[in-house]
Amino acid sequence: MEKFDLLIRGATLPGRGERDIGIRDGKIVKIAERVEGEAKEVINAKGKLAFPTFANMHTHISMTLLRGLGADLPLMDWLQKVIWRLEERFVSPEFVRDGALLGIVEAIRSGTTLFMDMYFFEEVLAEVCESVGIRAGLGFGILDFPTKVAKSPEEYIKRAREFIQKVKGSKLVFPVVCPHAPYTCSPKTLLMAKELALEHDLLLHIHVAETRAEVEKIKEQYGKTPVLHLESIGFLGDNVLCAHMVWTTEEEREVIRERGVKVAHCPESNLKLASGIAPVPDYVRRGITVCLGTDGAASNDNLNMLEELSTCAKLHKGANLDARAIDAKTALDIATVNGFKTARIKAGKIEEGYEADIMLLDTNRPEFQPLYDPVAQLVYSASSESIDTVVCAGRVLMEKRELKTIDEKEVYAKAKLWREKISSALY
Amino acid sequence: MEKFDLLIRGATLPGRGERDIGIRDGKIVKIAERVEGEAKEVINAKGKLAFPTFANMHTHISMTLLRGLGADLPLMDWLQKVIWRLEERFVSPEFVRDGALLGIVEAIRSGTTLFMDMYFFEEVLAEVCESVGIRAGLGFGILDFPTKVAKSPEEYIKRAREFIQKVKGSKLVFPVVCPHAPYTCSPKTLLMAKELALEHDLLLHIHVAETRAEVEKIKEQYGKTPVLHLESIGFLGDNVLCAHMVWTTEEEREVIRERGVKVAHCPESNLKLASGIAPVPDYVRRGITVCLGTDGAASNDNLNMLEELSTCAKLHKGANLDARAIDAKTALDIATVNGFKTARIKAGKIEEGYEADIMLLDTNRPEFQPLYDPVAQLVYSASSESIDTVVCAGRVLMEKRELKTIDEKEVYAKAKLWREKISSALY
Repeated sequence: MEKFDLLIRGATLPGRGERDIGIRDGKIVKIAERVEGEAKEVINAKGKLAFPTFANMHTHISMTLLRGLGADLPLMDWLQKVIWRLEERFVSPEFVRDGALLGIVEAIRSGTTLFMDMYFFEEVLAEVCESVGIRAGLGFGILDFPTKVAKSPEEYIKRAREFIQKVKGSKLVFPVVCPHAPYTCSPKTLLMAKELALEHDLLLHIHVAETRAEVEKIKEQYGKTPVLHLESIGFLGDNVLCAHMVWTTEEEREVIRERGVKVAHCPESNLKLASGIAPVPDYVRRGITVCLGTDGAASNDNLNMLEELSTCAKLHKGANLDARAIDAKTALDIATVNGFKTARIKAGKIEEGYEADIMLLDTNRPEFQPLYDPVAQLVYSASSESIDTVVCAGRVLMEKRELKTIDEKEVYAKAKLWREKISSALY
Repeated sequence: MEKFDLLIRGATLPGRGERDIGIRDGKIVKIAERVEGEAKEVINAKGKLAFPTFANMHTHISMTLLRGLGADLPLMDWLQKVIWRLEERFVSPEFVRDGALLGIVEAIRSGTTLFMDMYFFEEVLAEVCESVGIRAGLGFGILDFPTKVAKSPEEYIKRAREFIQKVKGSKLVFPVVCPHAPYTCSPKTLLMAKELALEHDLLLHIHVAETRAEVEKIKEQYGKTPVLHLESIGFLGDNVLCAHMVWTTEEEREVIRERGVKVAHCPESNLKLASGIAPVPDYVRRGITVCLGTDGAASNDNLNMLEELSTCAKLHKGANLDARAIDAKTALDIATVNGFKTARIKAGKIEEGYEADIMLLDTNRPEFQPLYDPVAQLVYSASSESIDTVVCAGRVLMEKRELKTIDEKEVYAKAKLWREKISSALY
């Protein structure tokens, strides 16, 4: 008798019909019409659709405690007048822990099992993720100016090295090197970061070409547009994940493709901060790997990847006057498998041998009725309320929309305490 | 002792704090910190935010049975190759009833208490709306070509007159005259429709300037762009609600403003069908009344006004590179009070003397934590899962996300039967 840790019974796999899914050691080991065997835990998924979970490839999850602050301001005003001022005053290990838990509640509730984060006190975040059972690629932002992390570029790199030693080999969490952006890091800082990443075979996660103002600034400073600047100093490679990439030239897109650089597209943040609309259909056409991210909840203003996916699929059709610009299947890949692949995790598909990162959706809801095309209806119709169950690395994080590894009430109680403190600084 | 039909206790009104709301004969009659009196029904709204409900100002609600069909096709292909073919075969009074109920389930669950509809067999829809307690402005599409409604423009007008007689004086439902579009109605048909509307003091609801192709067609046929064509024949007036209005010239916008024409903006449908992005910030700047609509669920692909509102607020910032293009408060007005006002219903605000169309939102959810700015968080962060209670004209349609006037299971069972029939015609 084959043994499983978790057996999902009778889930509907789009295009394949009802299937049992046997999971062992965090992996999908068997998919069949009927899987025989013993399981520690069984989920009856009759009438539920199974989809891979989402990979949120660019966020600052602890910023959830600053949700919605500075609404209706453009990026630089929002950063300088609201966010950086509040961060300077409030960000601490406790802020990061409480903010991350609130963000993770939201992430799980909307079907996310991996997020790529860049913020402060990421070692606290690492502990939180391991304990609640969600995957994360973590690194603090490396900058030329001092923050709570370090005082000089050299000290940031030293701290990053310590963080890597601490986190490497964790089960769900992996370290990432995060030089903040070409406009906040000198070429020297960028190259130190790159060297550290190569030394440990890690990803580099960086903001690039988010706004027109950034492009102007980099051109003024270096005589080149941001991607060409990064290329000219030898920064780019297939371990580089560039968030945003709204303003790029044709020439830059070719460089990106040649170097195997990955793009983390954040459509809602780019809209809300009035940064613009990234040329995603063109990236896809060229064969560049595009992933999806929510950015932080202070500029989105939520961490809902299902909403982000829907926006991604619709936005580029309208902006390009082309109903085939990004179709439902492409959008779903962008939100799932492309992200996991970039993070070097074999997940994002429900196949034997893949990691068991799976969500089950309740179809007895208006958006899935009548059920003609599960993929199109997930992308264009669904809301996260349909996400009934979320499994990450074989562990059930949510069932019947109830979180299994986090006490939601406690998380909200802490958010309310933070609200008192932070509100008093706003006025 | 003052008597109420419904008393909402301790709801948080944004900017005003906790208030009791006393409702009688469908209207808000008293708002105070403490309302004393007897009530047939009391709702404890402690910890819940009260907002006006949404007015969905352009939809074809029974098309919910065709949800998502023809995804990733542009408007004309989608209409001609998929939708019109299926409608020809399947639309019947039963289709309209079952589709409307499914759509109304979704509408209520996402906070809508008024919708403006244009479709077939609207008399069936009128009965459904009265019986489940939702407001609707109804009319069948008037066209130059024959459909199930009529064979000639004259017959459409005759049917419209009969429909008006049948529906006028209803409590929640009001008749609207719906010439389909300038590209499907001759000037003569448009003017017959206008005359009928004036005769009965009704709104005219029409699709205008949805795609570039439509503009080209009208220019070719009449030598003018669509709005100027409508103006030249004397069609426009302050009782005209134009859906879409994506492609308009500066001159046309001035005409729209002068005539007091209202715009029903459908951002998600315009994106998904690759029609384009309407110049909404410019309409607002000129003082044109802009309302919001989802369009039908076959081109959106849902009827979720909260999602539509969020898309509206973010889209125009990104498309115009201006973070103040449409702020949260303006977007909320577009989705609420502007729609009710256009429909000549005193609702869309929580004030004494207004109709009791109110929703209560649960703040013990991640998107409302921490709660800094209720309006911004409703617009940018919330998902419809937070909408706990919906009241329409003083009647509770949903409480704790449970519908009070519709049997959801039965609605889904019928949708599944329709799926069987319609699917078999797809392949």
